[in-house]
Amino acid sequence: MAETGKRRISILGSTGSIGVNTLDVVNQLGGREAFEIVAITGNSNIALLADQAKACGAKLAVTADDRQYAALKDALAGSGIEVAAGREALIEAGARPSDWVMAAIVGTAGLAPTLAAAKRGADIALANKECLVSAGELFVKAVAEGGGRLIPVDSEHSAIFQSLEDDQHHAVERIVLTASGGPFRTWTREQMAGVTADIARAHPNWSMGLKISIGSASMFNKALEMIEAKHLFDLRPDQIEVIVHPQSVIHSMVGYADGSVLAQLGCPDMRTAIGYALTYPNRTKLDVERLDFAKLARLDFEAPDEVRFPALRLARTALERGGVQGAVMNAAEEIAFHAFCAGRIGFLNMADIAEQVMDEMVGFGAAMTMDDVFAADAEARRRAGDIIAQREMAA
Amino acid sequence: MAETGKRRISILGSTGSIGVNTLDVVNQLGGREAFEIVAITGNSNIALLADQAKACGAKLAVTADDRQYAALKDALAGSGIEVAAGREALIEAGARPSDWVMAAIVGTAGLAPTLAAAKRGADIALANKECLVSAGELFVKAVAEGGGRLIPVDSEHSAIFQSLEDDQHHAVERIVLTASGGPFRTWTREQMAGVTADIARAHPNWSMGLKISIGSASMFNKALEMIEAKHLFDLRPDQIEVIVHPQSVIHSMVGYADGSVLAQLGCPDMRTAIGYALTYPNRTKLDVERLDFAKLARLDFEAPDEVRFPALRLARTALERGGVQGAVMNAAEEIAFHAFCAGRIGFLNMADIAEQVMDEMVGFGAAMTMDDVFAADAEARRRAGDIIAQREMAA
Repeated sequence: MAETGKRRISILGSTGSIGVNTLDVVNQLGGREAFEIVAITGNSNIALLADQAKACGAKLAVTADDRQYAALKDALAGSGIEVAAGREALIEAGARPSDWVMAAIVGTAGLAPTLAAAKRGADIALANKECLVSAGELFVKAVAEGGGRLIPVDSEHSAIFQSLEDDQHHAVERIVLTASGGPFRTWTREQMAGVTADIARAHPNWSMGLKISIGSASMFNKALEMIEAKHLFDLRPDQIEVIVHPQSVIHSMVGYADGSVLAQLGCPDMRTAIGYALTYPNRTKLDVERLDFAKLARLDFEAPDEVRFPALRLARTALERGGVQGAVMNAAEEIAFHAFCAGRIGFLNMADIAEQVMDEMVGFGAAMTMDDVFAADAEARRRAGDIIAQREMAA
Repeated sequence: MAETGKRRISILGSTGSIGVNTLDVVNQLGGREAFEIVAITGNSNIALLADQAKACGAKLAVTADDRQYAALKDALAGSGIEVAAGREALIEAGARPSDWVMAAIVGTAGLAPTLAAAKRGADIALANKECLVSAGELFVKAVAEGGGRLIPVDSEHSAIFQSLEDDQHHAVERIVLTASGGPFRTWTREQMAGVTADIARAHPNWSMGLKISIGSASMFNKALEMIEAKHLFDLRPDQIEVIVHPQSVIHSMVGYADGSVLAQLGCPDMRTAIGYALTYPNRTKLDVERLDFAKLARLDFEAPDEVRFPALRLARTALERGGVQGAVMNAAEEIAFHAFCAGRIGFLNMADIAEQVMDEMVGFGAAMTMDDVFAADAEARRRAGDIIAQREMAA
């Protein structure tokens, strides 16, 4: 707590969808009267970042993009808000004392700033996937050593977190991650082979960025979530189930040894999970839509098809192999994703390429340090790039 | 705990469906090695009661039926098991020191023995409806004063109990009781007018006794559960929702002020709720069927129709009026139920009669003592009987 009695919070990645929703929740829960905003960070949307900083009274505003320093400085001239830019400044934003940090920087760039926050013992509201997918053991260890709490913000993991009972880890039999199935849920592999990024980005339930939309279409997001779940909830691979649930109303479930299944449900609005992360273990009133079960009328479930959606199979492989395979899968797929968006490879090739890189790098051991993680990440990216280039030459 | 270190338990109503399942759970969790069975009670199924007593090593076996004393005594001759019979003996079974009591005697007969157990501070696993429907405030107060815990066993209330978070009562916006809708879910009032007890007893999901089967068909069970929920969870009438969910997979839900809904799901097997009541706040492994979401395929929901199922409307009336209206509704309906089973009144008349008695007795105040509850119960039964007789004479 600040001397003012206000809760000190920082938002890493405030201009993205999670960041914008976090500020909305902060405002709903009292805004500047209740919170001291230590730092917010963004990337290239300087106008929004500056507006946010002024509106919430942030002490520090950071752009990840060095070249935007002057623009941000200009936009915040006379506001008294400290301005910084670049990778080290992002880490500084995470390291600066606060009680709670929203970790919503997308991609590997979010790792170091979030780790800085974790190490000093802040509560971490985790929306960045790479902290767990790429650096799971190390990250969880850093949070534990720092003494803060790790609270997931992904709707699926928030649902599991909410459905887990204190001191009952021994009785958790399985978790059931729900998956919308994406826009190609009912498509054949032949149909999927021909799709473009524009087709793939249309998600049935959630409004999301391009990377997440494509990851939903390929179910690669769910593959990442399986790995995240393993680290967040300390599970064996065989305890992690995926069920396709097109309505995305049940956000995920926990199955206990007595046959009970606890589930969290809600409308597709990230603010519920963000609010829960902010007020945990308490709940507070939020102005979000309530579920109307009569209006919902029905919820459907079907087994996921790991032939049409090989990303799920890759996640199981990564979970069973352990070590840096999560980092490798994620990095290779990210390169493949960019190649797909550029029209260089087909939709189904994203998984092919990730799998090939994972197989090539099966000999890489566990990450002892973050540098090992970054090295595996870089090596996987290099190899994925090589494979794509080779395929183009062969074609 | 007994000096042996075993948990001392009693099962009031051991020969009914709940009682039999409770003994199954007790056996799954270690049987005589883990539990000392202080007392079990039954009604007229002496052979089963005696077999149970011998199998579980009960110290005391009680039949509610005075006339069966000799038969039970004979059946347990030489076993060393104490035998008793009659109403006072039932109360003695509840009063005798134990750590946990399953309260599964059906009807008003269950009130006094359960109250005896509550007053001495035993944890009460509550399957009897009348304790809350008829004597809600008094019963809840007795449990609180005794210092034991009140753990519901009804699948719906167990689900709500499991979905409630510690210290978050302030954030509970609503509970959503699920209802199968019974065998007449899609029937018109005209169709229902002509049904007999044999038609009405066929329940789609659960195997149950006649009273509960008919109560499911008329949704009168749900009406009772609404009143139980009010007392169990200290809710306002407007916080209690009912949703028809034919598959009975979601056993009930809690809606929070942040938009989250927590739910408990399971196969239709009472042993999960019984096991939870026995091991709460811990969970332990039970040999019950697990939910398979792919096999379920879909869950449906529809708004309940209070015109076709007036019992739900009566429950709201009882909740809003308070006082002894719950006891009155329950007692009047029980008389009407017997008249229906005897072919004296039609299916739809059960609600008519309960409503008429409730309206007649609207001036009765709150129950200050259990005697007030019993008096209201008796008066409602008398009036319901009169109304049925008058209608027969008029016809």
